[in-house]
Amino acid sequence: MPCDYLSLVHAGIKNLHPYEPGKPIEALQQELGLKKIIKLASNENPLGASPKAAHALRQLDVHDLALYPAADLHPVYHHLVDKLNIAPQQLILLNGSDAFFSLCLTTFALNTNRIALTHQYTFIAFPLQAQILGVKLKAVPVNQDYSVNIDSLIKALRPNVAIVYLANPNNPTGICIKEAKLKEFLRKLPLNTLCILDEAYYEFHAQTENTLDWLKEFPNLIITRTFSKIYGLAGLRIGYAIANPEVAKLLKRAELPFTVNKAALTAAEAALTDQDFLHKSLANTKSGMQQLEQGFQALKLSYIPSQANFITLKSPFAGIKLYEKLLKRGIIVRPLDPYGLKEHVRITIGTPEQNQHLLNVLKGEIND
Amino acid sequence: MPCDYLSLVHAGIKNLHPYEPGKPIEALQQELGLKKIIKLASNENPLGASPKAAHALRQLDVHDLALYPAADLHPVYHHLVDKLNIAPQQLILLNGSDAFFSLCLTTFALNTNRIALTHQYTFIAFPLQAQILGVKLKAVPVNQDYSVNIDSLIKALRPNVAIVYLANPNNPTGICIKEAKLKEFLRKLPLNTLCILDEAYYEFHAQTENTLDWLKEFPNLIITRTFSKIYGLAGLRIGYAIANPEVAKLLKRAELPFTVNKAALTAAEAALTDQDFLHKSLANTKSGMQQLEQGFQALKLSYIPSQANFITLKSPFAGIKLYEKLLKRGIIVRPLDPYGLKEHVRITIGTPEQNQHLLNVLKGEIND
Repeated sequence: MPCDYLSLVHAGIKNLHPYEPGKPIEALQQELGLKKIIKLASNENPLGASPKAAHALRQLDVHDLALYPAADLHPVYHHLVDKLNIAPQQLILLNGSDAFFSLCLTTFALNTNRIALTHQYTFIAFPLQAQILGVKLKAVPVNQDYSVNIDSLIKALRPNVAIVYLANPNNPTGICIKEAKLKEFLRKLPLNTLCILDEAYYEFHAQTENTLDWLKEFPNLIITRTFSKIYGLAGLRIGYAIANPEVAKLLKRAELPFTVNKAALTAAEAALTDQDFLHKSLANTKSGMQQLEQGFQALKLSYIPSQANFITLKSPFAGIKLYEKLLKRGIIVRPLDPYGLKEHVRITIGTPEQNQHLLNVLKGEIND
Repeated sequence: MPCDYLSLVHAGIKNLHPYEPGKPIEALQQELGLKKIIKLASNENPLGASPKAAHALRQLDVHDLALYPAADLHPVYHHLVDKLNIAPQQLILLNGSDAFFSLCLTTFALNTNRIALTHQYTFIAFPLQAQILGVKLKAVPVNQDYSVNIDSLIKALRPNVAIVYLANPNNPTGICIKEAKLKEFLRKLPLNTLCILDEAYYEFHAQTENTLDWLKEFPNLIITRTFSKIYGLAGLRIGYAIANPEVAKLLKRAELPFTVNKAALTAAEAALTDQDFLHKSLANTKSGMQQLEQGFQALKLSYIPSQANFITLKSPFAGIKLYEKLLKRGIIVRPLDPYGLKEHVRITIGTPEQNQHLLNVLKGEIND
C-alpha cells in the first residue's frame, strides 16, 4: 500500500500556502515566449549590482571556490563592524532574511510554548516561517491607512510573546512607523520579548535617528538589513543582523554552518566601497517614485505612499486580474492576494524607461 | 534587571555543542602568523574547483547579480535531471546538507512526536540539526570495526521513527555499507519512515549499483549529493537531493525561498561539463590515499580504511593533542572529539606534496 506522505507532516505544513516568489523572467519567457520582459515584482535594483561587485567576483580563483566560506573572518565582516560602529560580537551575516526569521524562531520560540506577534499586511516570510516551525502567530489589525497600529501591538503584549516582527519600512505597504512611536513600543516591550526590526529597505527612507544606536537602550532589539535591495546583490544572497552580544551568541550557536557563500562575501565587500553606485540607485528610486506617483495620479489610480523602492497600487478591478493583464504584456508585478490585499499590486521602481513603459501599458489595460 | 537570554531557549539549544567547522586557513594565519598553511580538515578538493566553473563566474554581469535566483529554472537543474535520469519533480537543489537535514526534520518530524534514528559516529550535522529543532534522536552502536550495524538499525525501527539518517560512505569513518545490506535495510523500512542516504562522497567510492535506481522500489528513500567535495565548490554552497515526487513536493513546500545563489548555480552548471577535472580529482584521491596509507603503515600508525577523500587516523596519544601539534606546524586536520572518537583525527587527502609534508611532520611529532 503506498504511503500518503502528506499525512505525516504537522498541521502547519499541511495547511501551508508556500511563499510564491515574484515570477522570474525566465518563467515568463518560457510561458509566453516574449522577448522584452520587465520584472518589477521583487524589489530588486533595476540598475543591477555595483560594477565593483561584479569585478571582485572575477578575482575569485579555483582555490577560493573550493574552500568552505568563513563569514566571520572575511574582510566584509570587519568592514561592516566598522561602518556600523558596533562590536564584532553583535554582527551576524545572513543567507537571506527568511533563514534568519527561521533561526530566530527556532532559537527563541520553538518548543517553548511562546508565540510570535506582528501586524496585518506585514512581510509574509515571517508568518510563513512561524507556520512552518509550528510557532503560533498573532497579527493585530492595522489602521485604515494601512499604517501600523502601535497601540494595538502594545495591548497584545503578553508574557508568552517570544518575538515581535516589524518591517520598517513595511513590505508590501512601504509605510514607516514614526520613530517616536517605534521607541515608545520598544520601551513597553518586556526584556524577555525580542523584537526583529527588519530594515531591508532602510536605505530608501530618510531616517533622522540611527536605529543602531537604540541597541544600547534595548538589548531585546534585533535589526536586520540586506545587500539584496539597494546594493543589488539579491542573486548572491547576503544580509546581516545586529543584536546584543548575548542574543547574537545564541543565534550563532543555533545557526547552520557556512550559510553565506564566498561569492556573496566577496561581492558585498566590494559593494560597500561603491558609494557612487548607492547614490545613483537612491537617485533613481527617488525620481522613479515621483514618476510613478504622477503617472498614477494622471490615471486617477490610488496607491499607498511608500518610503521604499516599491509602491503598492490599488487596481480598479481585482489585483490578480491587473497582474495577469500586465504579465501578458511582458511586465511582471506582484499581486498581493497572499497578503489579503486583493485589490492591490506591488510595483518595484524601475529605470525611467521601465517606469514609463509600465505607465503606458497600465493606461491601456485599465481602459480596456 | 537585565535578561538572561539563555534562559529563554529550549533545552536542545541550551545544551548544544555547536558545529565546529574545520579551522579556516585565515584563522590559523591570524593566530600563529604562519605563512605556509595546509588545510586537510574539511574534505575540500585540494585541486580547487574546475577552471570552467571559475570561468563561468566571470560571465555573471551586474543584472545577473541583482535578480533573485530561480534554481528550478536554471540550466543546471535540467542538466542534472538529464544526467541523473530522474523526473524533474524529484530534484531539489540545496544550499548545503545542513539546511537540507533541517528541512527534512522540520517537514517530517517536527511537532509530530516522532523521532530520528541513526548510528554512532555518523556525520554530526544531522544529530545537531535534530537537537536544534528539538527532535529526539536515537543512535545505535556500530560494530567494533566502526562499520554500521544494519541489524541493530533494523531492530530499532518503531512506528515512531520518522527519519533514518545514513551517510554512505560515512563521515568521519569513510566506511561504506555493503549494497546488499543497505537494500535489506530499505526493504525492512516501513513506508512511512523516510531514509536520508547522504552520498556526499559517493563519487570517490566504486559502487556497482546506481542507488538512484533504488528510488523506484523505495519511495521513502531520499538521496543527497553535493558539489562541495569532488566538484570543489564548497565555497559557493550547492548540493542536491533526489526523492520521490510526493516527498520532494512536501520538502519544496517548506523550503526557504532562493536558497541556492546564482554564483553556485552558474559554477555548478559549468563544473558538470568538466569531466577532465573530475578524473584528475579522482586520480589524485586514489593515489593520495595509497600514499597516506603506506606512510601511516611505515609509521606504524593505524587508521580506518576509507572509501572517501579522507582517512581517519588513530593517534598514539589523544587526538586533540596530535591536532594541536600539527596546527603549530601549519597543518590543519580534524580532531574527532565532537564525535566521541577521542584518539582519532580525520585527514583529507591533499596533493602529493601536501600528503608528503603531512607524513614528514607527522613522523617528527609522533616521535617527539
